[in-house]
Amino acid sequence: MESVILKPIGVIRSPFTDVKSMPIQPVSENSAAGRIEIFPEFAAGLTDVEGFSHVILLYHFHRSQTYSLSVTPYLDTEPRGLFATRAPNRPNPIGLSLVRLVRIEGSHLHVENIDVLDGTPLLDIKPHVPEFDCAPGARIGWLEKAAADMRTKVADDRFHR
Amino acid sequence: MESVILKPIGVIRSPFTDVKSMPIQPVSENSAAGRIEIFPEFAAGLTDVEGFSHVILLYHFHRSQTYSLSVTPYLDTEPRGLFATRAPNRPNPIGLSLVRLVRIEGSHLHVENIDVLDGTPLLDIKPHVPEFDCAPGARIGWLEKAAADMRTKVADDRFHR
Repeated sequence: MESVILKPIGVIRSPFTDVKSMPIQPVSENSAAGRIEIFPEFAAGLTDVEGFSHVILLYHFHRSQTYSLSVTPYLDTEPRGLFATRAPNRPNPIGLSLVRLVRIEGSHLHVENIDVLDGTPLLDIKPHVPEFDCAPGARIGWLEKAAADMRTKVADDRFHR
Repeated sequence: MESVILKPIGVIRSPFTDVKSMPIQPVSENSAAGRIEIFPEFAAGLTDVEGFSHVILLYHFHRSQTYSLSVTPYLDTEPRGLFATRAPNRPNPIGLSLVRLVRIEGSHLHVENIDVLDGTPLLDIKPHVPEFDCAPGARIGWLEKAAADMRTKVADDRFHR
């Protein structure tokens, strides 16, 4: 199958300049503020976005160099299949994060609950629609037992050796 | 910023060979069954995935040729900013769908609630974790008034002229 060539549409600014201190995912206890800087040529696409309280960011895990199909996640001590994790080192290193949209100023989105490294290339923004994106009560496999830790653990450097 | 080059890790099989009859997103009333065929070299990454009742598919909108920053969505009659919609024609044509995982057989995932065109190149599979991916009660902007239609409308061909 053909390769897919993507070009960043902006850059993500966050307080996280070092992967070691990053939250794992933007859970409720993480209120970190960030700024999504869309390149000006795409700004017209932001019309109507402010009506949504949350948006999904797709971005390039630009520090990812390689991957393994078996990884030991931050939230566990046992190796797990890569596709059962949100680890950044993947065959296609695309990250997905839900963030809270605070406001839009020109081509900049001010957001909260960000868990993305400062300087990360942005690939897409999609409106978050619970009807499409949520399965309340979903089973979460190996994460069930880690759920209690989920809110407080921060990343270490295991994926960035 | 540098381009990102992705290679499909599999292909999505669905009943939808024609965009005209497709559901818009995999909402609850859409129980369409599909099969995600991971290429054998990635199958080891599926370990532990079966513990999750829902997975997120990232895929290439391979029929997308161009885009406009203002689109009239299926669910509306007014033009909206592209990033306030889930339209397939985007600067980076990556699709995102939540599907219900029924079972895994070897390198094939049997899923339900699929809204993806048959033959679509798969880019990534991520476990769906409500804690990460859901904002219950999120405001959904222009979609509020379309919400009542959301479950029953099917796509037409407006993005594939």
